[in-house]
Amino acid sequence: MSIKIGIMGYGNLGRGVECAVKQNSDMELAAVFTRRDPSTVSILTDSAKVCSVNDIDAWKDKIDVMIICGGSATDLPKQTPELAKKFNVIDSFDTHARIPEHFANVDAAAKSGNKTAVISVGWDPGMFSLNRLYANAILPDGKDYTFWGKGVSQGHSDAIRRVEGVKNGKQYTIPVESALEAVRNGENPDLTTRQKHTRECFVVLEEGADAAKVEAEIKNMPNYFSDYDTTVHFISEEELERDHSGIPHGGFVLRSGKTGWNGENSHIIEYILKLDSNPEFTSSVLCAYARAAYRLSNEGQHGCKTVFDIAPAYLTAMSGEEIRAHLL
Amino acid sequence: MSIKIGIMGYGNLGRGVECAVKQNSDMELAAVFTRRDPSTVSILTDSAKVCSVNDIDAWKDKIDVMIICGGSATDLPKQTPELAKKFNVIDSFDTHARIPEHFANVDAAAKSGNKTAVISVGWDPGMFSLNRLYANAILPDGKDYTFWGKGVSQGHSDAIRRVEGVKNGKQYTIPVESALEAVRNGENPDLTTRQKHTRECFVVLEEGADAAKVEAEIKNMPNYFSDYDTTVHFISEEELERDHSGIPHGGFVLRSGKTGWNGENSHIIEYILKLDSNPEFTSSVLCAYARAAYRLSNEGQHGCKTVFDIAPAYLTAMSGEEIRAHLL
Repeated sequence: MSIKIGIMGYGNLGRGVECAVKQNSDMELAAVFTRRDPSTVSILTDSAKVCSVNDIDAWKDKIDVMIICGGSATDLPKQTPELAKKFNVIDSFDTHARIPEHFANVDAAAKSGNKTAVISVGWDPGMFSLNRLYANAILPDGKDYTFWGKGVSQGHSDAIRRVEGVKNGKQYTIPVESALEAVRNGENPDLTTRQKHTRECFVVLEEGADAAKVEAEIKNMPNYFSDYDTTVHFISEEELERDHSGIPHGGFVLRSGKTGWNGENSHIIEYILKLDSNPEFTSSVLCAYARAAYRLSNEGQHGCKTVFDIAPAYLTAMSGEEIRAHLL
Repeated sequence: MSIKIGIMGYGNLGRGVECAVKQNSDMELAAVFTRRDPSTVSILTDSAKVCSVNDIDAWKDKIDVMIICGGSATDLPKQTPELAKKFNVIDSFDTHARIPEHFANVDAAAKSGNKTAVISVGWDPGMFSLNRLYANAILPDGKDYTFWGKGVSQGHSDAIRRVEGVKNGKQYTIPVESALEAVRNGENPDLTTRQKHTRECFVVLEEGADAAKVEAEIKNMPNYFSDYDTTVHFISEEELERDHSGIPHGGFVLRSGKTGWNGENSHIIEYILKLDSNPEFTSSVLCAYARAAYRLSNEGQHGCKTVFDIAPAYLTAMSGEEIRAHLL
């Protein structure tokens, strides 16, 4: 009996989940739910249905876990609590500052419906969070560092595209190699925002736009760019399409810590992700936690969870005997 | 109320646990148990007792978790099941092939005593195992690689010292950089034993020993050295003491995997440890899991567990609210 997956929202993330479900032989995609007219949405899985979100209630008993693939700004804060009353759900809510509030809302909803919800699943929050937690628990006397990139930041790319005179654009976040090296050497540096990451922008101008003005506006944009060393390259739409159409990302989580009676020994724990496709990797994490949610729900462990609350064994299709024999 | 820790066995690992307990403000060391005459064992913690292992039963109600710091070859297969009947226990059993058998023995013992046991805790098995499991669950279509070092292998150092004509010696396991790079580049290489690691030996000869004969005997030793490119350096006892008295170790766990409808995107997950002191890092992991064992036991979750069965939140002294707000 395979785990029946529903996908709510069919953008990059939803398509990624569809691909990930195909890789997990104990799962099958039941249906994709969309706010668009279902007849305009074509998916890759022959055996799955495309349905209007308005018909989602009819699927209550036909879907084991709903993977919600909306955005964190406006979609998930509404969708996840709403759907958690009726389905076991997973989301990738990534507005770090609002996680406590989202957790409380989803927890109340899931408990009211006797369902299991897992929020903020992906790589950051997600795998990076797990690595921060494990490393903190192991080395209480230490210092944390998270670096992102090299990768495309959707938020910063959007910010570029809002600048007057910009036709299209893409922004890469790049960790500063010398800062990374200082951390790896156990130097425990105090790093400013500027010392940790640089930002590289590839911009297609509208016809007649003033390049110098656009460049200055990008570089001085508060929050997004003004605290960073930013490079702006002007390229053609063809070059952007040819060289910058991927959505790679990744990053580094490090903790350096001391042990010994007088802190005489140093240790470095480092976790690295290098991802060709940010949404497809996130989707793969979502599917592993969908398996966990299904099992937790069957055990009657309802309410909202995060990656911190779920024992690793729940994520794999292998049995306890198998993982002890082959992975331990 | 702090968690009262007992240490069974006071070698490098026991001393490491003593130091780690000091770093965790919610724990205190109650007693160290030794097979030696307790009056000959001096520890660092003023407030803790040194006791004979023969008196351990008197401590049944005075210790929350016993951390067993014996060796995997002969100590732990006996000690852990025996002590698991009376105490919540943690060990670092690391004979991978015998884990299923050890698990079964400890599970039966712990259940009979309504105690919680966690076996095979440390970094490999331990943190490396966790990283293998998480990465396998996320990227089902992929390939695993584990590299060890650069670090001192106790087993291989012991093997050197058993060679006739050898007074003292130390062996370093070193990962082959080009093999690591091939994995990081997503080349998915098939690597032989020889292609993954080299072995470097520092040997002090007995007076009058035949260096060429010793070198040949080391290099041709089956299982330990014959499958590797091995280098042997002859040095003085003073040089060994000066340059090779540390116990560093570490290593790399990588998984490279594909996602996408046709496996068109590649991802690399990498976990790296660089440890000044192998036993002190292992001890630090043991302490984090001692906290988990204490909590699981209080919840009535008895029997034998491994790192796979324990949700990360159990490892930290921070509350659920704190970790969601600060680490997620």
